[in-house]
Amino acid sequence: MNQLLATQFLNTIEAALESLRYPYGAATLCNPIKYTFASGGKRIRPILTMAAAQAVCSKGEVALRQALAIEMFHNFTLIHDDVMDHSDRRRGHQTVVRRWGENQAILSGDALMTMATQMLISDCPADKLNAALELFNTTAMDVYRGQQLDTDFEHLSRVSVNRYVDMVRLKTSVLLGCACRMGALMAGADSAQQQLFYQYGENLGVAFQLRDDWLDSFGDPAVFGKNIGGDIVNHKKTWLFITASHEAPETMAAALSEGRSRAALIARVKKVYKMLKLSERCDTLIWDYYNRAVDAINRTDISEESRRWFEALASQMCHRSK
Amino acid sequence: MNQLLATQFLNTIEAALESLRYPYGAATLCNPIKYTFASGGKRIRPILTMAAAQAVCSKGEVALRQALAIEMFHNFTLIHDDVMDHSDRRRGHQTVVRRWGENQAILSGDALMTMATQMLISDCPADKLNAALELFNTTAMDVYRGQQLDTDFEHLSRVSVNRYVDMVRLKTSVLLGCACRMGALMAGADSAQQQLFYQYGENLGVAFQLRDDWLDSFGDPAVFGKNIGGDIVNHKKTWLFITASHEAPETMAAALSEGRSRAALIARVKKVYKMLKLSERCDTLIWDYYNRAVDAINRTDISEESRRWFEALASQMCHRSK
Repeated sequence: MNQLLATQFLNTIEAALESLRYPYGAATLCNPIKYTFASGGKRIRPILTMAAAQAVCSKGEVALRQALAIEMFHNFTLIHDDVMDHSDRRRGHQTVVRRWGENQAILSGDALMTMATQMLISDCPADKLNAALELFNTTAMDVYRGQQLDTDFEHLSRVSVNRYVDMVRLKTSVLLGCACRMGALMAGADSAQQQLFYQYGENLGVAFQLRDDWLDSFGDPAVFGKNIGGDIVNHKKTWLFITASHEAPETMAAALSEGRSRAALIARVKKVYKMLKLSERCDTLIWDYYNRAVDAINRTDISEESRRWFEALASQMCHRSK
Repeated sequence: MNQLLATQFLNTIEAALESLRYPYGAATLCNPIKYTFASGGKRIRPILTMAAAQAVCSKGEVALRQALAIEMFHNFTLIHDDVMDHSDRRRGHQTVVRRWGENQAILSGDALMTMATQMLISDCPADKLNAALELFNTTAMDVYRGQQLDTDFEHLSRVSVNRYVDMVRLKTSVLLGCACRMGALMAGADSAQQQLFYQYGENLGVAFQLRDDWLDSFGDPAVFGKNIGGDIVNHKKTWLFITASHEAPETMAAALSEGRSRAALIARVKKVYKMLKLSERCDTLIWDYYNRAVDAINRTDISEESRRWFEALASQMCHRSK
């Protein structure tokens, strides 16, 4: 497995998404789905699925359809999340809900979910069908539970760091775990090996989300692609916000309650974060989850070269600046 | 198959729905689902699934899980439809969207859809898994297309009767067809037999919806359970409305445009319907679809007694007054 592999998989995935077949006569229903796929995305999940299959059996393509199914599921959740969050923009474009309205976004999301399941099972070898569906459905339920927790948190005045990490694990990480495990499963790895791939993806997912939180406060505005401090302005319960609220409740309350400009609010809260050394501590935590991910991949049977590939990918994701 | 069978199946289905297992720690997510099942419903779809299996192999229970999956899918579509239509009441209770809000209704609907797929495949014999999933997913896509057409119609000034029937076929009938075919499939019927069961359900579904349209204008207010004329007041494009708008466009336009009370509007439109003899003509059409359904069931290999059972059920549905 060489460095070019991710690019090769990405090209295969993009081509497959572009040539997806939609039911005849369902243009209105499917245009928002086509639009969603044309709006880009990192495709990290399907790349992981194909890479895991490649590492196990040297043929990434055996898991192509399942990789696509996971990307389709992911995009379905984004379409519905944007309805629930009233989001206007995603990936530099209008969201589906903004462009076509709520009803169309709900219905097209539903259709995409069914298309994802259909993709997952198409051409799936009979001896892997049940395990693939079980993994897919269990993960889907976890993702909904994560979304539910995230919604519940909005109405809670205090959330513990542990519950936050649990929410992140469900909402974001399990799907990365599922993506990795699905590739190993399709390539014929045994259950213990599959579990190690799952652990790699799951821990990588937590690191990924924590890096997201970190970037929103400490990222380089010139590279980040959106305004720094959006989470702070929206009082979003990130790891940084929750930790600061626990360790310096009065200082945080004061920082949040004072009026004046957006810039001043961000500056005040970041001052609290700095006082508590949260930038460094968040970074330490990210690398802690990175280490757990790498540890899991190092316990698999795959070649040394493949392990280095997964390690490099994880490192890249933990260093990313946008 | 005797007359008590529907009651037996209904009891089995209700007990199974009541004892559904939900993911641990997902109470907020799953309470709206439990509430939906506790709110009742005719359970006509799962009864048809079990009855078809019973007719083919004398064991209705071989299709119990698939029957539940179809009822779960049906309820998922109702939860999302009520969000899209901003409906306040269903089955004499508050809708999920009204009671828990839009976000919860979207998310719980999503979860119910995944639970339905999981139910469909649980304990499904390996040699039937692919066919069951294919039927289920194809039907789901049809239902979304039907819902899409229904939404599109709201923004069209004229809809042809053919397109209306096509919409009804997709939105309502295919799921009844799927319910019947699923039972036959699980019981081991061959593809040609399965297709006849599908045709029975599909035609019954059109008759069922036309009877719904008819009842809303010509039902007995004392029995119907809701106010007569709701479709007229909402300018809903039913068979009656569309036919009248085609055959007497100016009279209908005049009847709809004049002001005054709800009662006066209903009376004016019903006068147009009566002038065009739409009550009788709709009734004729209902029995036309009834005949097609009965014709299909009579071409199956099942016992004479079983055929009469399906015939009686269809007759009951076409005579129903609520």
